[in-house]
Amino acid sequence: MSQHTNNEITDASTKKLFEGKNFAFVSTIMRDGYPQITPTWVDIEDGNILVNTAIGRIKQKNVSRDPRLSIAIADQNNPYDMVTVRGKVIEQITGDAADKHIDKLAKKYLGKDKYPNRAPGEKRVILKVKPERVFHMK
Amino acid sequence: MSQHTNNEITDASTKKLFEGKNFAFVSTIMRDGYPQITPTWVDIEDGNILVNTAIGRIKQKNVSRDPRLSIAIADQNNPYDMVTVRGKVIEQITGDAADKHIDKLAKKYLGKDKYPNRAPGEKRVILKVKPERVFHMK
Repeated sequence: MSQHTNNEITDASTKKLFEGKNFAFVSTIMRDGYPQITPTWVDIEDGNILVNTAIGRIKQKNVSRDPRLSIAIADQNNPYDMVTVRGKVIEQITGDAADKHIDKLAKKYLGKDKYPNRAPGEKRVILKVKPERVFHMK
Repeated sequence: MSQHTNNEITDASTKKLFEGKNFAFVSTIMRDGYPQITPTWVDIEDGNILVNTAIGRIKQKNVSRDPRLSIAIADQNNPYDMVTVRGKVIEQITGDAADKHIDKLAKKYLGKDKYPNRAPGEKRVILKVKPERVFHMK
C-alpha cells in the first residue's frame, strides 16, 4: 500500500480516477452543521474538479453558504485505489456552459449525447472546486 | 428510478447494501468545520451501522467531538443503487469486541480470518451509528 498527500491534482493516476467513469462522493455542510453526502458524476479540468448539479439542490445551497467540501473517489474496478480531496467551490457557472457540461457527463457515464433526466425548469450549475489537499491511497 | 426516505434501516434491499462487500464513505466534521470524508468497511447489526476504526484516527476524534455523520454506500456492481444515511454515533466500543469485529470485517472484505493491517499499539474501536434519516435511490 502506498499513499501520498499533495495540495493539487498533478499526478496522472489521481487525474485518471476523475477522468474515468467513477462516481464521486461529495460532502458539504448543512445549515445546522450536519455533514451531507451525495454520490455524483464528476469531471476534472485544469486541475479543478467540476461537479454538475442544479440550482436549489441541497449541495448547491450548502456550498453557497459555506464553500468548503470534501470529495472521495475510488476506482470502480479496485475500491482500494482511492483519493480524497478537500477543497473549496471557487466559482458557480450556470447557463449554456452548465447545460453542455451535463451532456458531456451523460456521454461519459451513460454513453448518451443528451442528459436524459433533466427536470422541467431545472437550472444546471457547475461547481468548480479548487483542491487544497489531495490524499491518494492505493 | 425509485427513491424512498425512512428514519431507520428496515427494508431488505438497504440492509443488503450494508451486508454486502461494498465500501461505505463516511463524512464527519473537522474541528474547523471542514467536512471530512473517508472510505471505510462497514457492517450492520440490529439496525445500527458499525464502523471500525482506531483510537486517535481523524474520524474517531471528529465523532468524539461531534457525533453527527453521514454515510453513503453503493452497490459495487451497480453504482446507481445507493443509500445515504444521516445519523449519530451513539456508542464507541473498544477492547475484545472491537478486535473481533475488525477480524469479522477482514473476513467479509478480504476473505482473511485475521485483519492483516493492524499497526503496533493500535486500539480498535467500533463506532455504533444510529440512523436518523435513510435515503435509498435506485
